[in-house]
Amino acid sequence: MQINTERLQGALEAVNRIGATPRGGVSRPTLSDADRQVRELFVGWLKDAGLQVTIDQMGSIFGRRAGREDTLPPVLFGSHLDSVIGGGRFDGALGVMAALEVIRTLNDHGHATRHSLEIVDFTNEEGVRFQPSMVASGVMAGAFALDFAYARSDREGKRLGDELERIGYKGSAPCRRRPLRAYLELHIEQGPVLEAVGVPVGAVEGILGINWNRVVLTGERDHAGPTPMPMRHDALVVAARIVTAVRDLALRHGGEMVTTVGCLDVEPDLVNVIPGRVVLTVDIREREAGKIRAAWDEIRAEMARLAAAEGVALATEELMFAPPTTFASEVVGAVEAGCRKRGYAYKRMMSGAGHDATYMAQIAPTGMIFVPCKGGKSHCEEEDARWEDIEKGVNVLLDAMVELAG
Amino acid sequence: MQINTERLQGALEAVNRIGATPRGGVSRPTLSDADRQVRELFVGWLKDAGLQVTIDQMGSIFGRRAGREDTLPPVLFGSHLDSVIGGGRFDGALGVMAALEVIRTLNDHGHATRHSLEIVDFTNEEGVRFQPSMVASGVMAGAFALDFAYARSDREGKRLGDELERIGYKGSAPCRRRPLRAYLELHIEQGPVLEAVGVPVGAVEGILGINWNRVVLTGERDHAGPTPMPMRHDALVVAARIVTAVRDLALRHGGEMVTTVGCLDVEPDLVNVIPGRVVLTVDIREREAGKIRAAWDEIRAEMARLAAAEGVALATEELMFAPPTTFASEVVGAVEAGCRKRGYAYKRMMSGAGHDATYMAQIAPTGMIFVPCKGGKSHCEEEDARWEDIEKGVNVLLDAMVELAG
Repeated sequence: MQINTERLQGALEAVNRIGATPRGGVSRPTLSDADRQVRELFVGWLKDAGLQVTIDQMGSIFGRRAGREDTLPPVLFGSHLDSVIGGGRFDGALGVMAALEVIRTLNDHGHATRHSLEIVDFTNEEGVRFQPSMVASGVMAGAFALDFAYARSDREGKRLGDELERIGYKGSAPCRRRPLRAYLELHIEQGPVLEAVGVPVGAVEGILGINWNRVVLTGERDHAGPTPMPMRHDALVVAARIVTAVRDLALRHGGEMVTTVGCLDVEPDLVNVIPGRVVLTVDIREREAGKIRAAWDEIRAEMARLAAAEGVALATEELMFAPPTTFASEVVGAVEAGCRKRGYAYKRMMSGAGHDATYMAQIAPTGMIFVPCKGGKSHCEEEDARWEDIEKGVNVLLDAMVELAG
Repeated sequence: MQINTERLQGALEAVNRIGATPRGGVSRPTLSDADRQVRELFVGWLKDAGLQVTIDQMGSIFGRRAGREDTLPPVLFGSHLDSVIGGGRFDGALGVMAALEVIRTLNDHGHATRHSLEIVDFTNEEGVRFQPSMVASGVMAGAFALDFAYARSDREGKRLGDELERIGYKGSAPCRRRPLRAYLELHIEQGPVLEAVGVPVGAVEGILGINWNRVVLTGERDHAGPTPMPMRHDALVVAARIVTAVRDLALRHGGEMVTTVGCLDVEPDLVNVIPGRVVLTVDIREREAGKIRAAWDEIRAEMARLAAAEGVALATEELMFAPPTTFASEVVGAVEAGCRKRGYAYKRMMSGAGHDATYMAQIAPTGMIFVPCKGGKSHCEEEDARWEDIEKGVNVLLDAMVELAG
């Protein structure tokens, strides 16, 4: 069996006409009118493919293709149709359309699976309009209460629960753990590795743990002219040494650790005033939770030394700790088997970014398939991927689903 | 002769009731209603002291006390009554009230000088409402055309010339170079040096040259999770190395060089995004113009190396170059003589900040007297100075004026 790449491409193009931006990207924030439109298109296609459509309490859309032994737990696959503002045409939407193309291909061949198959479009993966991100899969896994999720509000004060009702997607199916044979998600890599090594498929082994910390440096705001160098308490000089130390931290630890200072805000931010206050963030990601903790302890001690040397006060606050996720070897193995069968090069790799698969891994054997994206760019209108790579990834998705569903 | 410190203190307090802020500072932006009020109080005092009041085309207020030989050029002294928003009670106002107190003391003693004396309150020294700063002394020195100055506009689009008319201080006296025996300005140091060494008077030898540059770093905005460390082009990492290099630059050159990164702005400034663009400023101040040029060439070459090592593009733009000012040895000598006569410790020093004395030095033998301020703080409501220090500084001003005026 082979997927129909032209049909997949056509479906993705139709999806991306909804919320299209002038510069070739999309803006489909969750529960917006564009989200309602894309949901209606998607639900129509599910019905056309003969699937049984269910909307759960979080608005996630499920399309069920019955298996030969219909009492067995289904294999779930999909991704999300929401996007960031000014996002790209592949992040999320590709995974949902890939799952639909797999169903359509199975239908074309009249191929029945032992377990049923279910496509899913998860609500609010991005977390741009309502925080936290991946809230619907989180509720499903029991990480968040339904009422908590409903009460999330956007910048205008509109609540997630009310917006679900407004667009007509507050479903009645319970959003909770249920038996699943497996969960598999195809997604663009959102990083540059596969493109750099020239490999079309990533067999994702898990998701790096993520730790976010906020660092506040309080020095002395002084006039840049009359204050001699040795009498300064420059918060930005300390911040600069911290940025360099955070870069060195990952290089020293090696492996898959990545460390980033993404935010850095200077006060008063005037050309002739020695900065009195700097707030910055430290993002640490690693495969092992213990190594994240150790790295943070290490950098925290180093920050304290750097701040003390300049006479600057240091305060830190943990913003988030998401433990690492290890995917099921059975699911990763099914992806690898698909690649080997078709003779595609593939690379075992970790995901540096979070996905709904993070939560699904808490309730089902889970895996992901990555396809390369141009320059590793995502969450931008320039986001792009090559159809020859996508075709390979979706064929592997087809094979892995057939294997998992029996 | 001794100045009357209580009278000086009372005058300064009266001035600072105009535009007073709840937390003990002042907001008297130039040509505001508060500026008009303080000007009216000041002009009344000038008249009470028997001075002949003149307003020039830039609104600067002059009060003339005739000399014994009235055809000789006058000795000018004073400062400015405008302040920054949320500024302090001493910056500017102290110099004007000190000059008034010197006149009052001479009047008390019926002491006539050979040259006439003129107090001045310069319009818009601060440059907060209308840029550039020190524009009235600049027009007087011929650095700016009068029409250019009139056309400066504030954030609301109000023009300096119109605001001068509105508050009734668009005078008719030509604002241009004229023969002056000398110019002397008393000011708080705005730095921590005098307080640190425990010396009450600074005999200012000149003003450091100032060079401002804007640096734009353009890297690659990437997701902080999936982008391995060696594949990053992180504009903030380069910026951090530059901040450290700018700090080291002044330490390596030594002497009176001071170097500061005051502004640093990160894009997109998100916790999980590798910064794609950073804009920062470099402020270099030194006694010799050649050393400033050499230091900038040196740091520019170092920045280029740091940017290239990370694969980040570098662009620089000069924002300002104000050459150093050397004050007249005769005027600095008169200040030192006053200190010696009264047995006050003093320190020869450079001013790191610009003052109206910068422009006056282009038309007359010029000097400044610094008094210590608490913690070196200025341009803030906490700005403070000790009256025992101020008393010494103003007595030295009195002596120096008598010496210069003969």
